[in-house]
Amino acid sequence: MRNVIAGGSREMKAEIIAVGTELLLGQIVNTNGPFVAKGLADLGIDVYFEETVGDNDERLRQTVEFAAARSDLIILIGGLGPTKDDLTKQTVAQYLKKPLVEDAAAMSKIRRYYRETKKQMTENNRLQALYIKDSLPLKNTTGFAVGNFYQNPQGADFLLLPGPPSELKPMFEHVAEPLLSKTYFKDHHLFSRVLRFFGIGESLLVTKIADLIDNQTNPTIAPYAKTSEVTLRLTASSQNAAEAEKLLDGMETIIRKRAGKYLYGYGDDNSLVNVVVKLLEKKNLNLAAAESLTAGAFQAVLAEVPGVSNVFSGGVVTYSNEAKELLLDIPNRVLEEKGAVSGETAKLMATSIRNKLKTDIGIAFTGVAGPGELEGNPVGTVWIGIAYKDQPVEARVFHFSNARPFIRERSVLTGLDWLRCKLTK
Amino acid sequence: MRNVIAGGSREMKAEIIAVGTELLLGQIVNTNGPFVAKGLADLGIDVYFEETVGDNDERLRQTVEFAAARSDLIILIGGLGPTKDDLTKQTVAQYLKKPLVEDAAAMSKIRRYYRETKKQMTENNRLQALYIKDSLPLKNTTGFAVGNFYQNPQGADFLLLPGPPSELKPMFEHVAEPLLSKTYFKDHHLFSRVLRFFGIGESLLVTKIADLIDNQTNPTIAPYAKTSEVTLRLTASSQNAAEAEKLLDGMETIIRKRAGKYLYGYGDDNSLVNVVVKLLEKKNLNLAAAESLTAGAFQAVLAEVPGVSNVFSGGVVTYSNEAKELLLDIPNRVLEEKGAVSGETAKLMATSIRNKLKTDIGIAFTGVAGPGELEGNPVGTVWIGIAYKDQPVEARVFHFSNARPFIRERSVLTGLDWLRCKLTK
Repeated sequence: MRNVIAGGSREMKAEIIAVGTELLLGQIVNTNGPFVAKGLADLGIDVYFEETVGDNDERLRQTVEFAAARSDLIILIGGLGPTKDDLTKQTVAQYLKKPLVEDAAAMSKIRRYYRETKKQMTENNRLQALYIKDSLPLKNTTGFAVGNFYQNPQGADFLLLPGPPSELKPMFEHVAEPLLSKTYFKDHHLFSRVLRFFGIGESLLVTKIADLIDNQTNPTIAPYAKTSEVTLRLTASSQNAAEAEKLLDGMETIIRKRAGKYLYGYGDDNSLVNVVVKLLEKKNLNLAAAESLTAGAFQAVLAEVPGVSNVFSGGVVTYSNEAKELLLDIPNRVLEEKGAVSGETAKLMATSIRNKLKTDIGIAFTGVAGPGELEGNPVGTVWIGIAYKDQPVEARVFHFSNARPFIRERSVLTGLDWLRCKLTK
Repeated sequence: MRNVIAGGSREMKAEIIAVGTELLLGQIVNTNGPFVAKGLADLGIDVYFEETVGDNDERLRQTVEFAAARSDLIILIGGLGPTKDDLTKQTVAQYLKKPLVEDAAAMSKIRRYYRETKKQMTENNRLQALYIKDSLPLKNTTGFAVGNFYQNPQGADFLLLPGPPSELKPMFEHVAEPLLSKTYFKDHHLFSRVLRFFGIGESLLVTKIADLIDNQTNPTIAPYAKTSEVTLRLTASSQNAAEAEKLLDGMETIIRKRAGKYLYGYGDDNSLVNVVVKLLEKKNLNLAAAESLTAGAFQAVLAEVPGVSNVFSGGVVTYSNEAKELLLDIPNRVLEEKGAVSGETAKLMATSIRNKLKTDIGIAFTGVAGPGELEGNPVGTVWIGIAYKDQPVEARVFHFSNARPFIRERSVLTGLDWLRCKLTK
């Protein structure tokens, strides 16, 4: 649950421009854009456009002009360095018809570095200490190039940030974000809550709450689909946290009535496996797994959670029928008569691994990941078995479509979701 | 550095537009843009601008109009899905003054999916099968939304690709890239060869061949670093395949002299695990695994290769010491005296799983993935054991730095690389 400041004494439309030919060649992925965009969203500043432009003054000038005509705040990232390719400050200064002036503190930091390392300082390094006259130079704690914030009495404001993520991130978090908050917002705040769903597709979920989305005002509702889950971000605008919580609770209650059984958790950084591991810890239960088609993927996903060793002991990967016999004592007769892909086999696997590792719960996966069908079962047929404490062992069959890796991922998540349901019953 | 081309019968300026509010909110990082930009660079198509715009028809229309005025090819990514937010096709169709028509093959694939999974198909799913009239619908092998390629007799061409990377990547590589090559370049052809390296970092590899990179003409050399490997793409421009092969062979020979021992394979879609599985098949050997810190990840990676069941039987995940005793009969004395993270334990694990599953090879992983140290071993200490046919069992220790998921990935790949070396000896 992520709640943060802001709200608008003024509705801000921001635009982010990343500068660098290496971005256009696909040589590096632009992680600065999402980082800054997320920070702005937390502040309640809308980003309507992002652009990437190469190290070319004409195209950069054109992009700045387009942006200035439609946005209130333009954030330029990169191109503040010492080389000939670095043109951002110069181009913006020219657009604003302002000269560049030297930041004495930044300049003395550069001089000190070269003195201390006994390297030769080339003249172009001075460029990094320059900033646009009448703007606020922003201190770079992890590099040399100063940032700039220019409040424009006649048009769009400009924020200039360095390109290396190691310089951008601290400057944005510690200098720019507080500055923007102070400059643009005084009274209102935004509070967000992320609801996470598994087992329902985006289109069906969105259909179920279409009227809520169509009539959204406060809170707003933003759906987002990942590979195997959907999230809804509810965002309330309010003067205080208590009132916002009330607004969010109200909307969540309505959504729960429509799709509550698919809601498995909250938060931006959460996942089904985290929720399951927390439930196991809370109930003081431990788990072992026997995997055929998933071939270790279920256990590997579990082990992504640090400290999982308290609730997870281990298991087997019985990819072949022989392995099912040798490691789990599944009778050859069952494999022959009922099939490796069957409820009987899934149940025996779950029970056997639970007994062998003396755990509270055993979970088993057997099915057809493809490419071809198996024992007459089409690709995507998956049996999951759960032996849960002293309850009778259960098995369920699922039919997943799509490609091989998807079937296995889906099997793992479905097993986790079934466990979650059993643990919350 | 990465330029090429070939018989540019026409100099192409491309522009990439990513569509999706989630990108502007910073909820996801745009990896599609760099992927497509890189592919275009390989083709010799220049990208001058990239934009990101939200799911808003007016702003998307504006962005398309800007782009069409300055670029020859506009690539839109995302917004082809079934929800109300997905506006890309509609907006481009409106700009082109063309209606949308239904792709029968795509529609029947959608219907089949809903029939087979017995889910309810909502009406909005039909949207995914629509394409712009007079454009070429592009088949989506891993999803439902069709792509589009529209050659515009009066202006900029349009390429529409789906947003999920799992759909975009195969569609771009297997459908769009060949189509663009055929459409824009006729007389000269590009021939690429990808060399794949494991166990050497990008900066060291690039240093070893710095002179080749500096003086590249034909073939060109493009290094690319992924999480745990580096590739070099050699691209020759030529009128025929035989001449290109000669150019590529010549360059490969020089590179092999400098870094041949790290070269494990060829091709864009290759991987260490593919190479190992092919070697096992060729030698008619099969494999079993015992995993502690990797917790099934090694076996799950193996099982990503279709048909791996011929060479892979299964194994165990012995996350706890108790599991090592119960599933592999590792004597408690060894675990106490030598430690779970030791050469002795790794050797016993490898031998035990080979014997239990009666395979030719047993491989074992035990180590410290963190967060804390274990038995006095720092995070990143990993022992790998290999019991290879009737050879004496071996164990090696590795020290990986960095975060938990990285240590496990690196362990898996290092195990595969060691196997590869043993299989090629």
